[in-house]
Amino acid sequence: MSPEVPRLALATVCLSGTLEDKLAAAATAGFGGVEIFAPDLVADPLPPAAIGERCRDLGLSVDLYQPLRDIDSTDPDRFAANLRRAEATFDVMAGLGADTVLVCSSVAPDAVAGTDRLAAQLHTLAGRAQDRGIRIAYEALAWGRHVDTWDASWAAVAAADHPALGLCLDSFHVLARGSDPAPIAGVPGDKLFFLQLADARELSMDVLSWSRHHRLFPGQGGFDLPAFLAPVLAAGYSGPLSLEVFNDVFRQADPVRTAVDARRSLIALAEATAHHGTGGTGGTGTDPVATPAPRLGGPAFVELAAGPELGRVLRALGFSRTGVHRTKQVERYRQGDATLLVNAAGPHPGTGSAVAAIALDSADPTASARRAARLCAPPLPRATGPGEADLAEISAPDGTSVFLCRTDSPTSWAHDFVTVDEPPVPGTGIHAIDHIGLTQPYDAFDEAVLFHRTVLGLGTVADGEYAAPFGLVRSRALADDARRVRIALTVSLLRRGEWGPGVADPQYVALACDDVLATAAAARDAGVPLLPVPGNYHDDLAARLDLPGPTISAYRDLGVLHERNAGGDYLQVCTELLGGRLFLALVQRTGTHDGHGWTDAPVRMAAHRRSRLARSPAPS
Amino acid sequence: MSPEVPRLALATVCLSGTLEDKLAAAATAGFGGVEIFAPDLVADPLPPAAIGERCRDLGLSVDLYQPLRDIDSTDPDRFAANLRRAEATFDVMAGLGADTVLVCSSVAPDAVAGTDRLAAQLHTLAGRAQDRGIRIAYEALAWGRHVDTWDASWAAVAAADHPALGLCLDSFHVLARGSDPAPIAGVPGDKLFFLQLADARELSMDVLSWSRHHRLFPGQGGFDLPAFLAPVLAAGYSGPLSLEVFNDVFRQADPVRTAVDARRSLIALAEATAHHGTGGTGGTGTDPVATPAPRLGGPAFVELAAGPELGRVLRALGFSRTGVHRTKQVERYRQGDATLLVNAAGPHPGTGSAVAAIALDSADPTASARRAARLCAPPLPRATGPGEADLAEISAPDGTSVFLCRTDSPTSWAHDFVTVDEPPVPGTGIHAIDHIGLTQPYDAFDEAVLFHRTVLGLGTVADGEYAAPFGLVRSRALADDARRVRIALTVSLLRRGEWGPGVADPQYVALACDDVLATAAAARDAGVPLLPVPGNYHDDLAARLDLPGPTISAYRDLGVLHERNAGGDYLQVCTELLGGRLFLALVQRTGTHDGHGWTDAPVRMAAHRRSRLARSPAPS
Repeated sequence: MSPEVPRLALATVCLSGTLEDKLAAAATAGFGGVEIFAPDLVADPLPPAAIGERCRDLGLSVDLYQPLRDIDSTDPDRFAANLRRAEATFDVMAGLGADTVLVCSSVAPDAVAGTDRLAAQLHTLAGRAQDRGIRIAYEALAWGRHVDTWDASWAAVAAADHPALGLCLDSFHVLARGSDPAPIAGVPGDKLFFLQLADARELSMDVLSWSRHHRLFPGQGGFDLPAFLAPVLAAGYSGPLSLEVFNDVFRQADPVRTAVDARRSLIALAEATAHHGTGGTGGTGTDPVATPAPRLGGPAFVELAAGPELGRVLRALGFSRTGVHRTKQVERYRQGDATLLVNAAGPHPGTGSAVAAIALDSADPTASARRAARLCAPPLPRATGPGEADLAEISAPDGTSVFLCRTDSPTSWAHDFVTVDEPPVPGTGIHAIDHIGLTQPYDAFDEAVLFHRTVLGLGTVADGEYAAPFGLVRSRALADDARRVRIALTVSLLRRGEWGPGVADPQYVALACDDVLATAAAARDAGVPLLPVPGNYHDDLAARLDLPGPTISAYRDLGVLHERNAGGDYLQVCTELLGGRLFLALVQRTGTHDGHGWTDAPVRMAAHRRSRLARSPAPS
Repeated sequence: MSPEVPRLALATVCLSGTLEDKLAAAATAGFGGVEIFAPDLVADPLPPAAIGERCRDLGLSVDLYQPLRDIDSTDPDRFAANLRRAEATFDVMAGLGADTVLVCSSVAPDAVAGTDRLAAQLHTLAGRAQDRGIRIAYEALAWGRHVDTWDASWAAVAAADHPALGLCLDSFHVLARGSDPAPIAGVPGDKLFFLQLADARELSMDVLSWSRHHRLFPGQGGFDLPAFLAPVLAAGYSGPLSLEVFNDVFRQADPVRTAVDARRSLIALAEATAHHGTGGTGGTGTDPVATPAPRLGGPAFVELAAGPELGRVLRALGFSRTGVHRTKQVERYRQGDATLLVNAAGPHPGTGSAVAAIALDSADPTASARRAARLCAPPLPRATGPGEADLAEISAPDGTSVFLCRTDSPTSWAHDFVTVDEPPVPGTGIHAIDHIGLTQPYDAFDEAVLFHRTVLGLGTVADGEYAAPFGLVRSRALADDARRVRIALTVSLLRRGEWGPGVADPQYVALACDDVLATAAAARDAGVPLLPVPGNYHDDLAARLDLPGPTISAYRDLGVLHERNAGGDYLQVCTELLGGRLFLALVQRTGTHDGHGWTDAPVRMAAHRRSRLARSPAPS
């Protein structure tokens, strides 16, 4: 990337709402341009000139009007009618002040098959456009009738050889077909008229449904977007980086949030492309966009909003109260490298106990904060008392605060706490925070994935789905390479309705230990409320894993859940719900097991549901 | 079908909740048996014997325990371990009191390829099962590693030739692969151990995802289930008809409603199979199950819950007030064959104006009511005043009342109205009710489709999806063959969240006329608030359809929306919202156009959104 970042643009199809909502959201998020989708304009009461004026007032250029469909035809009368239709589109564009129109390869039965004949019709169309000062950006739809690959579209454009005719490249259409984007670097840069970017998860369905329902912003899915963008930039493309993402969730979510998420994705993509092997046109160590996320050193602490009874549970778990905050109602508990803060200001009335904040040690908190700001996650202003550390605090998409800090610095947050003069509690073998589990608000899941991947620099460890008692759950685990920081995100596959009590699954903190049976036994003996696990589960486990009788007996006694895969074992014991939507888990990993307890999550969720019901029976 | 309807059963995977919730729901809906899905049992705190007892208390037999996966193996040690696992499953079944277990064809890398070797292992397994009084029902998964068709599973079962080994047939696995079910009639009936039924919409995705997310109850999708069931019954299958439906929505919806819906689907399937060409084992004209839905004569009336201002709008539309109800605050308005009742008790406080009831003329209202009761839609008890007609009233899944009546009978509902002595209003050309548009509650869409197809005997006319301003919309239109009754159902593709004002799209009544321009002009002149349509829409329309200038001018003036397809034209003019969630549409069809205005629905929805905002501006 050159130090001058290209203009970032957004197609109106990415967002929910009327055209007015969409333009306002794009401007609020800081985009410089938009692609206007014809049906959005058709449904708008303002004439094109007034829409163009509105865009200019908002600081948005209309970089593309789209699409013109099924232009070429084997029927001369139909082609003549299509040209008349194009002229009407040019009229609209003149009003908007847009100079580039997207023409998709035809899907119609009368689509022209031969390159030369197609090129001749595109040449005619380009001539009409040129007369109006307009450029035609021709794009191969992956499901086009005859033209369905980027090189087929380039063959037609090259053969037509008209200055007002060039290519529109769409990463989805190229990558979904498995085409190699590298040869794009050989296309003359002045023939690349427009670039549309989209990511997607790998799904096995027809490409049309995949494209229309499940596109994602770059960094949210599995496509190698830098490997696509690099050759496009190497070819000399100098237009905007524009997102065209059809996504069922984004279509019904708050458009401002979606637009901010969209801009974050492009900034991160530009950064990743600068680091990409084929290099693009620049990118230096001093380019702020190209600075990678500082190395993370693991969770400094997790702050729990909870009543004072949580302190008693933590002591029973072997945590010592090592400090109290100088100015706030916050206590610090510690065992091994695991630090938990209990914010005794109490749980939020609406949600009960919850994870309020995650603090991550960063090799360079100032750089982390700068990076967050650049990625549209501006640090929150903090009310700090005298002598308090100046942590960078940002808000994750689910509302959890994320602190970026350096525990060993002279101005560390640790100095905000006064040491408590009380005898330490004997430990139970807990030595670290294994991971943090956060159920996401429905609309925020893909946004959260992007936030954690880009702002924190985490990578995807697992991406799955499981059947829970009250509906399917999507899950995604993110971690740094060293597995110091693990965050497990879950969300209902469909937004939940009224049926099913406890709409949100709880959040939790998983605490690492080396002998979960010993740790759990000590905790249980000290009065920690451990979650009972059904005997049927252990019968089934014994049959599946062929475990010795005494092991199974201990598992039954303590409520151990045990997952095994090729890498090793993952054992966990969960607490009952500790008020509202929070529990703790004791986790022991062996070998290279990289899981987060999802195989057993349905059993755990049913058990939590029972204990919740037992404590607050529904009115009969 | 024999007059003795077979036992109807339901797999617990069909329903949301814990095992306890699911068993209770199945019993409440009137099922006689269940398939218990192993993970449901594993997550349950009761031991198998107590679950079995619970089932018996609820009147449910445990017809199947499922599944045992990946049983056969090319590795002898693995196969021996799999047999030990099977013994543990037999222990569970002994507790439950279940005598049949589902064994799926293996998907594992070590699955056995040759029929003879596979048959030998199945024979060994069946021997172990027989020792425990258990039968093995072997099923081909459509994505099995070697066995992926029903005839491959039959080849293995036939070769094994063991009395405790038979087939489980699953309509999804057979029909999704496009296999011909007719040859099933040649399988010995005593080798058909179990039958699982599921429908699905035609989707182009991998068969595993299709199966795990998008199965439907028979009658909700596009599979020809009678053509599957008929040869199974012809073969002599005498076990239960059981549903195994994995569906993302049902997994998170009220299990009692889902279970009732499920039972309705089986009853209707048995009826349809009795009428199916290949005949099955019986079915006579006197079998109540086999009685088809009585012929419908069109909407007798639509009752609107609305304030008195609606009466003024109807008069302006050319409706005459022809009667008032003898005992209720209901007025009757009529033009041509279109009758609208205005229930001046007023709109529901939560929703505003709405469609409260639809009355359909039936050739035999008593038979219609009996049919509804048989299909789990029991007629509601009605509070009738002296002299009032005794209509059958049932409740559609969305809460709309559906009356089945005979307007020309001596006890017709029409006699409940006292004729009003006032001069008739001159008509505007409206002659009938074209259709009724009902947005569905999210969880009730597929249930509503089944209700209208089975209880009312309507067929699917169109099944689609469109992009509306605040999210994608699924749509399905149902009608009788003569197109006297048309009902258009819509639902958000994803359940809507907080973003997007006016979460529910309005309901509407479409009124048929032969010259929509004349009717709309008369209505507008009389003061009916017509919905303005953006000029951009008409510019685009003029370019697309090449309409003459004066036509487009008239369209602009009156807000005409115009859709054209190969069959003809569909023109509509909508009113503004008439309080709450209701509008009226004037509709003119030409040729054989069979649509319901969905192409233009996004434009209409954006326009309604604007007029709603204009009347109640959001706080800035």
